[in-house]
Amino acid sequence: MTESSITGVLRVIPDGSVTTPEGFYAGAVYAGVKTYGDDKLDLGILYSDRPCHVAAVFTRNEVKGACVLVTMEHVADGRAQALVVNAGCANVCTGEQGLEDAREMARLAALRTGAAARDVLVCSTGVIGVPLPMDRIREGIARITLDPDGGRALARAIMTTDTRPKHIAMQFQHEGRTYAVGGIAKGSGMIHPDMATMFCFLTTDAPVAPAFLDATLRSVADRTFNMVSVDGDTSTSDTMAVLANGAAGGDPIDAGHGAAQLFQEALYGVSLHLAREIARDGEGASRLIEVRVYGAATKEEARRAARAVTVSPLVKTAVYGRDPNWGRVMMAVGRSGARVDVSRAVVRLGDVAVFVRGRPVPFDEEEVRAILGAPEVRIEVNLGVGSEGATAWGCDLTEAYVRINSEYTT
Amino acid sequence: MTESSITGVLRVIPDGSVTTPEGFYAGAVYAGVKTYGDDKLDLGILYSDRPCHVAAVFTRNEVKGACVLVTMEHVADGRAQALVVNAGCANVCTGEQGLEDAREMARLAALRTGAAARDVLVCSTGVIGVPLPMDRIREGIARITLDPDGGRALARAIMTTDTRPKHIAMQFQHEGRTYAVGGIAKGSGMIHPDMATMFCFLTTDAPVAPAFLDATLRSVADRTFNMVSVDGDTSTSDTMAVLANGAAGGDPIDAGHGAAQLFQEALYGVSLHLAREIARDGEGASRLIEVRVYGAATKEEARRAARAVTVSPLVKTAVYGRDPNWGRVMMAVGRSGARVDVSRAVVRLGDVAVFVRGRPVPFDEEEVRAILGAPEVRIEVNLGVGSEGATAWGCDLTEAYVRINSEYTT
Repeated sequence: MTESSITGVLRVIPDGSVTTPEGFYAGAVYAGVKTYGDDKLDLGILYSDRPCHVAAVFTRNEVKGACVLVTMEHVADGRAQALVVNAGCANVCTGEQGLEDAREMARLAALRTGAAARDVLVCSTGVIGVPLPMDRIREGIARITLDPDGGRALARAIMTTDTRPKHIAMQFQHEGRTYAVGGIAKGSGMIHPDMATMFCFLTTDAPVAPAFLDATLRSVADRTFNMVSVDGDTSTSDTMAVLANGAAGGDPIDAGHGAAQLFQEALYGVSLHLAREIARDGEGASRLIEVRVYGAATKEEARRAARAVTVSPLVKTAVYGRDPNWGRVMMAVGRSGARVDVSRAVVRLGDVAVFVRGRPVPFDEEEVRAILGAPEVRIEVNLGVGSEGATAWGCDLTEAYVRINSEYTT
Repeated sequence: MTESSITGVLRVIPDGSVTTPEGFYAGAVYAGVKTYGDDKLDLGILYSDRPCHVAAVFTRNEVKGACVLVTMEHVADGRAQALVVNAGCANVCTGEQGLEDAREMARLAALRTGAAARDVLVCSTGVIGVPLPMDRIREGIARITLDPDGGRALARAIMTTDTRPKHIAMQFQHEGRTYAVGGIAKGSGMIHPDMATMFCFLTTDAPVAPAFLDATLRSVADRTFNMVSVDGDTSTSDTMAVLANGAAGGDPIDAGHGAAQLFQEALYGVSLHLAREIARDGEGASRLIEVRVYGAATKEEARRAARAVTVSPLVKTAVYGRDPNWGRVMMAVGRSGARVDVSRAVVRLGDVAVFVRGRPVPFDEEEVRAILGAPEVRIEVNLGVGSEGATAWGCDLTEAYVRINSEYTT
């Protein structure tokens, strides 16, 4: 964890996950929906032993999966108790049958857990346009057993082309109570979230009030997952949800509560970690790219400029090739729509300034090649027109991305 | 030539180029600016033996090359007589020195041709952020000799990562006179034009009136180059210009002239051919992808949806892998911002309907794989909400794109 926002009062639990907060259980099985990859878990359930407040954000893609449509209905009352998820088939563009299948998944998970079907979130990820193999889903859900340590198995069960599971938890204390926030997430292609990414599930045992939970989730999504891009494509299944079950006790946490800021920081810290992990594990990626834009006229222009750099295939291939071709960074910033004053702009690769106030600066090419070859590459751009900033994350573009996406149906 | 818009009254001259129209001359040399590729010509001049009306469109990238800024000044009076161009160095982000170098290139070309310096267009393409090697430019321009058949050499001299030169001409007749329209263009990366692409130079000996010339160029750019994408990145040097010298004689051609429509069709036909060739020769591309969107609510939404499909790396890799994964097409359309009614949408790969009115349709996978393996792949999407349409062109994404852009500085 290198994120500077995580202070000493937040304790990071690297092995933590969605079952670190009290009262949460999870389990996963291999049902045979996902037919590729080494890690064969592909179906799981997350469950709270008491009802939760829920907040969620979903893909803005006009084409939404059946599970997204059903989950939007189920979270509308702000209450949830379980989540059922499969990997390998996204149940998108599957017509009326798809909606019926998503509803049946909720009913099956309700039967298995004792939650009400309308309190079950349903999530599916994988190939588009293929009906869910409901016989396998039915048989699989019947085999799921819930475990208070089951969160990491669930993190594996939501993976598609991800090369490793993504999970973390953080704890903070307030007036003698310990609260936890846990999360799991998955990538790793079709990642250019517009509202939320393809699956980030968060839990907390803090008694967070509904309106504050919703506001915090939206703010965190905008600063984390909505600033990640692997390939510029926005999934039809993006779902980011947080369940707060209050099991740790105490008064409801709203904006005026003494633990409000700690909860915000914990939710931000967990989400930031998971968002960066998704970028780092982008399909075929060998490097995480962090782009910091400042000197922008508006916050929105800073965000657009930062994302334009992370999306640019020419920047991504240059980083892959360790090519200090910073001109491509200026090209990407220039096409983002953000205002730029080239005569005042600055570009840094790592800590090395390569373009300062309109002029190329001589630099040690070997030094910059080493910077571009590190596991994390930072690119900074001062647009020279204002004082707003934003940070975005992406990854390099390698031959492996092409192979992964041309060689089999995902 | 398969474009249906080209009717029998337009004669295609496949070997034609910008020197096919009367009164145009061109020449090119190797000056040593471009240090890669087999075809070493890298510096050239286009010249008309009499002053021309000129119309031009330029990149909308906020970061514009010095040559673009100088050329914008030089075409402001609607008059031009020559064009000087180099490949290998874009002269972008080079500060005041860059502007001085671009102006000196214009002066050198003026000395060589006899045109006034303010009537010379200056174009540079290649790496960003490196000053022009003016000693080589000076020495090279002094060696250029102009030839009435020099257009194809000029088409070679503007290539960077292009694998082949792109040139064509068309002729039409009106009231006993023969008029010609010729063009050359180059790609092949950083291609997602927003106003014009990185170099399309057009000439005609028709006496086209300035306002009609400008209106026709803009209309043609929107239907051709502005619908092409290789990698979603917008160059800082995009320039599309047409020179009309009137050498073929006759009355000025404006919108009310009997040859107006023929001229429009010829300029469209030449530009469409060159735009498609740029997509087909996209960096690393093995196939041309044509995306036709219809049933859109507005023309603008049709354009956005069609471009979103051509830009999607997941669609591009699926075509490369001959994977009939049409769900990625719906994903791309859905993220474009265009309205879609999934329950009425239709997707066709070639002539095979794979998704009809909200439902996947069984299809012969081998047949569709063969369609996706052809040199030209057509994808059609009916958005199911209106009656507007648009066509866009792109190419598949292969490992070679990554290699080209990671292995050396372009």
